[in-house]
Amino acid sequence: MLDKDTLLAFAEDLAKTASIATLQHFRAGTSIDNKAEGGFDPVTEGDRQAETLLRQKIHAKFPGHGIKGEEFPEKEGTEPYRWVIDPIDGTRAFICGVPTWCTLIALEHEGRPIMGIIDQPCLKERWVGLTLPGEEPTLSVQGFLAGRTSGLEDLSAARLMVTDVREGEYFSADEAAAVAKLGSKVRLLRQGLDSYGFGLVAGGQMDLVVEAGLKWHDIAAVIPVIEAADGTVTDWQGAPLTDKGGDIHVIVAATKALADQVSEVLTS
Amino acid sequence: MLDKDTLLAFAEDLAKTASIATLQHFRAGTSIDNKAEGGFDPVTEGDRQAETLLRQKIHAKFPGHGIKGEEFPEKEGTEPYRWVIDPIDGTRAFICGVPTWCTLIALEHEGRPIMGIIDQPCLKERWVGLTLPGEEPTLSVQGFLAGRTSGLEDLSAARLMVTDVREGEYFSADEAAAVAKLGSKVRLLRQGLDSYGFGLVAGGQMDLVVEAGLKWHDIAAVIPVIEAADGTVTDWQGAPLTDKGGDIHVIVAATKALADQVSEVLTS
Repeated sequence: MLDKDTLLAFAEDLAKTASIATLQHFRAGTSIDNKAEGGFDPVTEGDRQAETLLRQKIHAKFPGHGIKGEEFPEKEGTEPYRWVIDPIDGTRAFICGVPTWCTLIALEHEGRPIMGIIDQPCLKERWVGLTLPGEEPTLSVQGFLAGRTSGLEDLSAARLMVTDVREGEYFSADEAAAVAKLGSKVRLLRQGLDSYGFGLVAGGQMDLVVEAGLKWHDIAAVIPVIEAADGTVTDWQGAPLTDKGGDIHVIVAATKALADQVSEVLTS
Repeated sequence: MLDKDTLLAFAEDLAKTASIATLQHFRAGTSIDNKAEGGFDPVTEGDRQAETLLRQKIHAKFPGHGIKGEEFPEKEGTEPYRWVIDPIDGTRAFICGVPTWCTLIALEHEGRPIMGIIDQPCLKERWVGLTLPGEEPTLSVQGFLAGRTSGLEDLSAARLMVTDVREGEYFSADEAAAVAKLGSKVRLLRQGLDSYGFGLVAGGQMDLVVEAGLKWHDIAAVIPVIEAADGTVTDWQGAPLTDKGGDIHVIVAATKALADQVSEVLTS
């Protein structure tokens, strides 16, 4: 069995390792060269280099663990542990020089995420959530943020994050209409933050994130972080999330009371 | 006449002074207390304290200059210089704990902005643009960013920033439709950055910003920064901006060629 101190130290090591590759490509050069079709793509380069480094570290430390990332084929494990890696979540932010992309790393045990890392290296902000069987959840936070959600239960006071409300980006027409309805019931709706918004919920600065069309690697790392911060992560119906490939719908909320109200609005 | 070194040193002093007040209130406490109607409002507090400190500094240094801010009545000057202050531009970002709000400070000479400061103190990123009569424009940049625009001329490759595309937020129905049309012609459209997006254009990381419904203090500081970075700032028709009170429409572009194409799409 893995122990807490080993895992938290390794999480820090992994986050720092990824940042060596990602920061090297962030804002590298101005844009024109990078934009040509088929030309050099700094996001893909950063993603690939970071995933390579992370795979090497994980394999050296835990040779029996599985590893799943976007850039290379999945490595099957011989133990019931699997790492899920997304070195640059928020590629559009990365392309635009906006420091709200994050590195997401999850560790699953028998398919359930037990550790999650959300790391924003420009801001030096990092959330590591860990829930080992039979132990209390732990949330380790680096940076100028709280380590638990706002505790908000009143929907009309909520700060909601949605990456892009436009129909056809992440939402179908019906979903976009449901999100617009939700937007009319909250204090404010903020767009364009990608996974950094999840960190802000864990840090008590936002209260809600609603998304659709996510993949498992976009959300697996988020679950242990939010849960260790006393928040909840469910689908739009209020059910726990599982790795079903793609098109995962997500409600991340500061409290269960808030999540229930959001689910009601989105599914009614 | 004011000289360059004096003004650039004073700009740094002003930016640091504002940050003392703003950072003290950013992410101060979690949210519930702050959200109650009529309760403590950290943005207003930070704004007011920063404006007070800035007014004191400016009055001490340049007693004959006018000063315009949001929180206190305008101070009329005895010389043809006026400072325009917005300590926290991006109040929604501030409320949500997102470090993309900025402090905006402009110095006008006979109504024309000759110096602009865009400062993001969490990220330690700052742009100061200065154009003195008969001198070349100067752009002083602090942080990990270039000091000129991307130089992009091809609209289909452009990274466009719009704070919120939704009808009724900043845009009328016609304006929202025009912006949606523009969004379909660019490489990507990013929402939710407020004035930080202007800095990213000056830093070569974004290529375009389109807004409506701005006030003069939202944009006055941006003009000398963008122009010193070889970009352009105009209204949607391509004309220079002036202080007409409110509802200012803005195109900020990496190049004039790009601005002309945007104006064509937005006004056709």
